[in-house]
Amino acid sequence: MVNQYNQILEKAINYRRDFHMYPETGWLEFRTTSIIAKILSQLGYEILLGKEIINENYIMGKPNEIVIKENIIRAINEGADEEILKKMDNLTGVVGILDTKKEGPTVAFRFDIDALELEEPEDPNHKPYKYGYFSRHKGVMHACGHDAHAAIGLVFAEYLAKLKDELKGKVILIFQPAEEGVRGAKAMVEKGIVDDADYFFTIHIGFGSTNNIGLVAKSKGFFATTKLDVTFKGKSSHAAAYPHLGKNALLAASNALINLYAIPPNSEGQTRINVGVLHAGNSRNIIPDKAFMQMEIRGETDNLVAYMKNCTERIIDGSSRMYDVKYEIIEVGSAISAEGSEELVPLLLEAGKELDIPDIFIEYNFNGSDDATYFIKRVQEKGGKAIYSQILCPIAAPHHNNYFDFDEKALLYGVLINLYIVKKLLTK
Amino acid sequence: MVNQYNQILEKAINYRRDFHMYPETGWLEFRTTSIIAKILSQLGYEILLGKEIINENYIMGKPNEIVIKENIIRAINEGADEEILKKMDNLTGVVGILDTKKEGPTVAFRFDIDALELEEPEDPNHKPYKYGYFSRHKGVMHACGHDAHAAIGLVFAEYLAKLKDELKGKVILIFQPAEEGVRGAKAMVEKGIVDDADYFFTIHIGFGSTNNIGLVAKSKGFFATTKLDVTFKGKSSHAAAYPHLGKNALLAASNALINLYAIPPNSEGQTRINVGVLHAGNSRNIIPDKAFMQMEIRGETDNLVAYMKNCTERIIDGSSRMYDVKYEIIEVGSAISAEGSEELVPLLLEAGKELDIPDIFIEYNFNGSDDATYFIKRVQEKGGKAIYSQILCPIAAPHHNNYFDFDEKALLYGVLINLYIVKKLLTK
Amino acid sequence: MVNQYNQILEKAINYRRDFHMYPETGWLEFRTTSIIAKILSQLGYEILLGKEIINENYIMGKPNEIVIKENIIRAINEGADEEILKKMDNLTGVVGILDTKKEGPTVAFRFDIDALELEEPEDPNHKPYKYGYFSRHKGVMHACGHDAHAAIGLVFAEYLAKLKDELKGKVILIFQPAEEGVRGAKAMVEKGIVDDADYFFTIHIGFGSTNNIGLVAKSKGFFATTKLDVTFKGKSSHAAAYPHLGKNALLAASNALINLYAIPPNSEGQTRINVGVLHAGNSRNIIPDKAFMQMEIRGETDNLVAYMKNCTERIIDGSSRMYDVKYEIIEVGSAISAEGSEELVPLLLEAGKELDIPDIFIEYNFNGSDDATYFIKRVQEKGGKAIYSQILCPIAAPHHNNYFDFDEKALLYGVLINLYIVKKLLTK
Amino acid sequence: MVNQYNQILEKAINYRRDFHMYPETGWLEFRTTSIIAKILSQLGYEILLGKEIINENYIMGKPNEIVIKENIIRAINEGADEEILKKMDNLTGVVGILDTKKEGPTVAFRFDIDALELEEPEDPNHKPYKYGYFSRHKGVMHACGHDAHAAIGLVFAEYLAKLKDELKGKVILIFQPAEEGVRGAKAMVEKGIVDDADYFFTIHIGFGSTNNIGLVAKSKGFFATTKLDVTFKGKSSHAAAYPHLGKNALLAASNALINLYAIPPNSEGQTRINVGVLHAGNSRNIIPDKAFMQMEIRGETDNLVAYMKNCTERIIDGSSRMYDVKYEIIEVGSAISAEGSEELVPLLLEAGKELDIPDIFIEYNFNGSDDATYFIKRVQEKGGKAIYSQILCPIAAPHHNNYFDFDEKALLYGVLINLYIVKKLLTK
Repeated sequence: MVNQYNQILEKAINYRRDFHMYPETGWLEFRTTSIIAKILSQLGYEILLGKEIINENYIMGKPNEIVIKENIIRAINEGADEEILKKMDNLTGVVGILDTKKEGPTVAFRFDIDALELEEPEDPNHKPYKYGYFSRHKGVMHACGHDAHAAIGLVFAEYLAKLKDELKGKVILIFQPAEEGVRGAKAMVEKGIVDDADYFFTIHIGFGSTNNIGLVAKSKGFFATTKLDVTFKGKSSHAAAYPHLGKNALLAASNALINLYAIPPNSEGQTRINVGVLHAGNSRNIIPDKAFMQMEIRGETDNLVAYMKNCTERIIDGSSRMYDVKYEIIEVGSAISAEGSEELVPLLLEAGKELDIPDIFIEYNFNGSDDATYFIKRVQEKGGKAIYSQILCPIAAPHHNNYFDFDEKALLYGVLINLYIVKKLLTK
Repeated sequence: MVNQYNQILEKAINYRRDFHMYPETGWLEFRTTSIIAKILSQLGYEILLGKEIINENYIMGKPNEIVIKENIIRAINEGADEEILKKMDNLTGVVGILDTKKEGPTVAFRFDIDALELEEPEDPNHKPYKYGYFSRHKGVMHACGHDAHAAIGLVFAEYLAKLKDELKGKVILIFQPAEEGVRGAKAMVEKGIVDDADYFFTIHIGFGSTNNIGLVAKSKGFFATTKLDVTFKGKSSHAAAYPHLGKNALLAASNALINLYAIPPNSEGQTRINVGVLHAGNSRNIIPDKAFMQMEIRGETDNLVAYMKNCTERIIDGSSRMYDVKYEIIEVGSAISAEGSEELVPLLLEAGKELDIPDIFIEYNFNGSDDATYFIKRVQEKGGKAIYSQILCPIAAPHHNNYFDFDEKALLYGVLINLYIVKKLLTK
Repeated sequence: MVNQYNQILEKAINYRRDFHMYPETGWLEFRTTSIIAKILSQLGYEILLGKEIINENYIMGKPNEIVIKENIIRAINEGADEEILKKMDNLTGVVGILDTKKEGPTVAFRFDIDALELEEPEDPNHKPYKYGYFSRHKGVMHACGHDAHAAIGLVFAEYLAKLKDELKGKVILIFQPAEEGVRGAKAMVEKGIVDDADYFFTIHIGFGSTNNIGLVAKSKGFFATTKLDVTFKGKSSHAAAYPHLGKNALLAASNALINLYAIPPNSEGQTRINVGVLHAGNSRNIIPDKAFMQMEIRGETDNLVAYMKNCTERIIDGSSRMYDVKYEIIEVGSAISAEGSEELVPLLLEAGKELDIPDIFIEYNFNGSDDATYFIKRVQEKGGKAIYSQILCPIAAPHHNNYFDFDEKALLYGVLINLYIVKKLLTK
Repeated sequence: MVNQYNQILEKAINYRRDFHMYPETGWLEFRTTSIIAKILSQLGYEILLGKEIINENYIMGKPNEIVIKENIIRAINEGADEEILKKMDNLTGVVGILDTKKEGPTVAFRFDIDALELEEPEDPNHKPYKYGYFSRHKGVMHACGHDAHAAIGLVFAEYLAKLKDELKGKVILIFQPAEEGVRGAKAMVEKGIVDDADYFFTIHIGFGSTNNIGLVAKSKGFFATTKLDVTFKGKSSHAAAYPHLGKNALLAASNALINLYAIPPNSEGQTRINVGVLHAGNSRNIIPDKAFMQMEIRGETDNLVAYMKNCTERIIDGSSRMYDVKYEIIEVGSAISAEGSEELVPLLLEAGKELDIPDIFIEYNFNGSDDATYFIKRVQEKGGKAIYSQILCPIAAPHHNNYFDFDEKALLYGVLINLYIVKKLLTK
């Protein structure tokens, strides 16, 4: 047993560090996807790619074609499988299916695989740098543990494949692109890939809430969210010679921005709003004809997000009228609020006990957003059960901080919990 | 001559101090009007009142009926002539006509008669208080010299009447209500009372630009202006319990206000904007459902006022949309830009020299607004000539300051200049 | 029993309607106080007034001397007892003490007695108007039920006095002024009037949460709050002639106001802010030299109020610097957060059951502020137990709405619950 | 004569088109400077470079060392003279001196040589593209005619050199860097290079005010200006999880920005303000910890710029306090107001007539800024005479527009007027 644990951990660490060295942001996970797909294929899984798993109408926040081309080339240079790339329709993410052909439930597991736009510190105090597996993609970094998720998925797939003959039913392994910015899940859900799932599981590692490894059976408190890109378009004019002939896009944006923060709180629950980025103007003495802002809204419920979005649109519209400028609002990401199925809590708690996980929590407030909620809601709507769990482990810095790193033991438990679930639900 | 001058000055001072003690603001000059009308009538002038001289469609900023009633009662208590009041249709202002019945030009003189909402200081350093002729109407005060204008008009009328036999043509004496807030002239002009005038004169006293008495032949640089009352109407709500159910009229107003000051300057000329008054809300813990603001716009030209007004309306509209509130904009005063007739300058300069006025200026920037511009423009449009002049004299404090007072010698020169003009233009 | 109940109700209704007809706002309850004091005195209670019960250093939001004088005169005209008024030191509120002289606990009951600045509708659909007991003080109205509280206190005092011989210990009846705006409790607490209390009770009627009479044993969720009056002082200037010489107090206030609403939410709990009133400027064409605003802050905890207050002060300071104006912030009211003593819940529930109150709730979120929290915290700090309860009853409109009215049956239960408590705690 | 004119024009066009193809922005004119210096040297002029002509303490808006290095390398690749580059101390600009060694006045001519950050359109309708001499430096373009000024200076230098024997006195040819952004003149003036000049001339081509070539003898109405870079520094925080822990630099900047536009107009003259660029934040869900803005102020007089700057600093300081952020303001450019010497007008008018320039204007409002004002003021302070003139010619689009182009005949007149001046002032 200990031997097998060591094996599992070693394999997972290898995968994880490889993904960590070649991080790819959302909708650009070409190398990551091709590697996962190739391994799954070698393990005997049926592979679905590209338009087979993505409904293009629901893609959010996709980079432009030039960027995609550049990233595909880089992926090839860094060992991506060209045959697989050809089948991907320039879309990332992969689904692997293990069908026992014996009657039984369908169980889906989801792993997100994308990285963040952060510059990894080349600092000996930062473990990935000290041990040489730091990011080779300057300005891109796995700082949320999705490298762990991908690695867990692959090792789980390997051990699961070995169990095939003992099992009934069907397992669906979903490697989801573009969770950061909550851009990817919806397009997969809308393709119907979990419509037949009786069970859905997904686990996030990290959080550092305890000094041990911990297990949260059911995460709750997922904030619904929407991510908006707003462009204000005015008219430039020489600011000294013809100030009255300009239409000042930056004034419209600034005025909207302040008033967005002043949207009244809603007594039905917590809300959040932030304009994280604003870029406007080109020249000191020209009235800015363009202002671009990236913002996000969060709320405890979908209704609260709708309330905030409605106010936001009104404020942007009104401020644009004040300055006689035009505007465009594009939704580039969204997650809904959802809550895991209570019925699956005992299964997770049992797994925790069985595996001697030191700290076990029935439930825990996630206080963030994750587009896994689209999967959860869809499975529940179709009559299945779905749950979001967490493996707590010590971390070096908060998630999304460029010093983020986690205790790799979490990888082991990620694989083991998933294996436990499969055995419980699908053993003949 | 000296004797006559002393007489004129004494009479003018008496009238002026009486008007100063009983100041009345725009459209409420019931006592003032009735006294002037009675004296003119006694002097043999034909008297026109109420709807004969006011086109009600063009009245701006008129107080409500209750206030009017209260002021009529007060006027009666303070000696207003009830017979005359009956003929006034609750409208103030009076026109006196001296028609020689001999062929000759028609010459109009205009005197404004209203006071300001200011509290006169009961301070021995303030001459009107020291000598006992301070305002008996608390919160109302002649602080712009219109008491002087009315007094000049009456003494001029008296001496003019004595000259009647030596004259040809016709003289129209216009005692205009509601110049403050530029609310009264337009309604008189639109009634047509200067449509037949060949000449139009009006003089403003004060300014203190020199230590002597001075004469400005032609004032120029009259700012066009519009005065707006804006009401924002939202929805109240308990600010702690239901913050999201309110529609905050005060936020809409505050946001509009700041952005009004940010309207870009116009390279075609100077503009001004001010929100002088804002009142909103009733209760500390209730979201304000109403905000009321009084504002004004000025510009070197009528076009510039139109530019500012257009921006103002857009800003108020946009800010109201931002906060989902309604609004109403009412124009309560306006003056246009106009320039006096160059041809009349020599006549004024001649008068100044003849009367030994120490400081004489050909022209002078008024840098303010006066609705006399409506008269000037109409007379010029009809082919006549019109001019606005100033009698400069030492003042105790700036116009519209509650310590305003002026050297009463200015009264004498006001009467004399007008008499000089009449003699020059209408002597047979 | 039924007869006694009818008697109690009738007496309470009479008092309540009398107080309703002569409502008095905070620190001006001269008639109300004198009537209560006189009756308590006649019932044999020891009476404490003025500086005996108020620590003047902690008074908040007290009207000026002129207003106080005017209200005393009105109170006398409307039947206030002049002897009692003399003992009041121009301060309102009264404490009545029933001391059995037998060893036993000290029990305090608190009743707030002030009204609101609201105009009561003279509308036949409004019961107080229909039945003739509407407010005789134009612009002042009991719209929160403090007339009920005062009436309950008086009838309770009467029946309590009859029980004196059966009781041990001491009862303190506190009739508190100026609860609206949370201005009065702190000054009483700081005088030490509950320092010896073993128990403290206070009940608020109304809320309309059910169609029946209901009882909430323990209200919780009291928002801490602070009420601020802010004055911005700039410099006036003619807005067209010398715009650059003014210091615009209204711009400073407007700019502060918008940014106050934009204070970020605090993840430690809910916060609220509101500027309910803004008055600025006198004249349309003058840059406003003064702006006055009334605002309030609330928070789930005292810390959250401190956070908001700190941000508020920084914003007002910064905005004043932006416009080179001065400012003054005065705290005119405050309440802290406090939670009732769990140990008293069973007593209240028992009372509810005993009295057959249809709807009984263990606890209920008050979601508002009440300065009774100062009493509660002080009693608990001194080792006593304190609780805040509610009697729910149907209401015609929300509290603080001028159509507010309540089912007078609540008066009966108010008296009975208090009597029940006394009997339980003080029966020999 | 016609032949010579054709020669002059041809030479000037060649130079101009070369400079147009290799435009360099302020303080980076390494190729331009080295070419000019080499030619002047070949023509026999004494050459001053680098610290000989630049007082480094007064340099504004200089790019960083890396950019300078890159541009030097590019200049070398594009034909810059390495020997000359070595003498330049990494500073651009060159002064050429022709000293006749015969007693006579010293006459300075100034030519500015830098380009703008604009992308030249590769559009056949744009003449420089159509004829192949469009910018080879992507994103940099001569769109204000300084390529013309440099070309005029060189051809003038050539013909002037031929006249040397006929002349007395001394000629100083100043090729000034970094006029755009008004960054270069002050550092030359503070080095003293015009301290001995008896006369100073500078001509700007373009403006398109007429369909012919025109001459403005004396340009006036130079706006004083200052260019500021402002950085706000706050603290980032996760906007959903810890909104209250951030210090929002973008809110501080936005709030400052709006209020900057609301600075009151000054009755002493026209003012302008503009924030042309704002960049803030990195991530949608993070409170921005940095905001950077580029702004400029202009005013009819130096005092008005001081007024605006004072207000600007106060607003930025106050807004930073409101949001508890730090800030830094750096002056990156400035020009003063100055007026040409009336005494030189007849000389220019004479030149215009002599050369048969179709449209001649005595004076013309420049309504912009040019740091030639530093030269003009210094020369006048030292007792000399200085004037700024314009050669009007048809243009394809306004100055600073990327479709800007001008009628190259203006080059001819630029050379001829300068020659005329020299002949008049320095002929023995």
